[in-house]
Amino acid sequence: MQTSGFQRARSAEHKQQRRDEMLDAARKLATDRGVRAVTMTDIATEVGVHKSAVLRYFETREAVFLELATEGWREWIAACVPAVHASGADPAKVARAIADTLVERPLFCDLLAHAPMNLERGVSVEAVREFKLATFGHIDRFVEAVTTVLPSLTDADAHELVSAVNAFASTLWQITHPTDAVAELYRTDPQIGHAVGEFGPNLRQQTETFILGLLARRG
Amino acid sequence: MQTSGFQRARSAEHKQQRRDEMLDAARKLATDRGVRAVTMTDIATEVGVHKSAVLRYFETREAVFLELATEGWREWIAACVPAVHASGADPAKVARAIADTLVERPLFCDLLAHAPMNLERGVSVEAVREFKLATFGHIDRFVEAVTTVLPSLTDADAHELVSAVNAFASTLWQITHPTDAVAELYRTDPQIGHAVGEFGPNLRQQTETFILGLLARRG
Repeated sequence: MQTSGFQRARSAEHKQQRRDEMLDAARKLATDRGVRAVTMTDIATEVGVHKSAVLRYFETREAVFLELATEGWREWIAACVPAVHASGADPAKVARAIADTLVERPLFCDLLAHAPMNLERGVSVEAVREFKLATFGHIDRFVEAVTTVLPSLTDADAHELVSAVNAFASTLWQITHPTDAVAELYRTDPQIGHAVGEFGPNLRQQTETFILGLLARRG
Repeated sequence: MQTSGFQRARSAEHKQQRRDEMLDAARKLATDRGVRAVTMTDIATEVGVHKSAVLRYFETREAVFLELATEGWREWIAACVPAVHASGADPAKVARAIADTLVERPLFCDLLAHAPMNLERGVSVEAVREFKLATFGHIDRFVEAVTTVLPSLTDADAHELVSAVNAFASTLWQITHPTDAVAELYRTDPQIGHAVGEFGPNLRQQTETFILGLLARRG
């Protein structure tokens, strides 16, 4: 439990500091136990304030996590774009650049599945609009990087790729990060554990297959 | 509201009938308003019984929907496998067979995203095990059909395909079926609506790209 040493933030500076503490707490708790399990009360307890204090900064828990999803897109693209540029024209290396920068961001991968199913349903339409527009700006940078290293691909192809990668990362992350009891089942029942596979290798493989398909279409 | 004309089911036949009514009610409510929004109380109200009566048949709402997911896999594979066989060796036609049989099953597409994130977390480990094993049996039939019409693909390729199709269908379905308020945003803001796209066309396109990638890898 961390507090900034004052009970109620009054100055703009203290308010920003308090808000950042709440986001830090949400980030830490969601990384530890998964986005799904974190409530506003958990965030308040972690910061050392009452739930009503958190509600002064964020209308819902979904608003907290949609902000972390926006941050996640910004940080992933900032890491992915130079990695794609460095990969050159080798589809396997491009796939590895995309996948490895996602594997390094487990909270973002968890948030990707929650965004359309849960987060966008628990905030105002204006907040959804801001999230979408911010994401589109990041995706434009991804599209520019991919079409630079793989010049036979069109902008539409690169948009299709980022949509597919989003689907792979969000779905594989949920499947490969079950409850402790189900994880134990995977470990003890080889038939099931083998079929489920591992997050990173599967993400790299599916991403590479998709890039090969886009390239094959362009001949 | 439908009832089977008796207040508490006592014979095995009546119990089966009551259970089927509860599954019918869950199917209807989830098709109308989305899996996410349906509670045990909603199911009880639709059947015309108290919530405690539903709890005699299903431990949680997740158990109800995991049963519908199991049924969804069985019915999708039963439709998809003959459609794949009829498509011949044309990758575009195979993709269309897979995607169109999913588009015809919106509740199954909704359930696909809920299964690992929510449903498997709200039931016993034994229920998860049964769901996985039933699903694997259906997937084996998919693998056999795909490798028959596209003989250059291996069993591992066809497993990779069904995993990718699961990711595409579950992610695209959630993104293209938002709340009414966000759907209105898509309609009125062309920049956002255009980027989100439509479920069926995107699913067909991503599935075809993935098949082309698998073929290119073996080519």
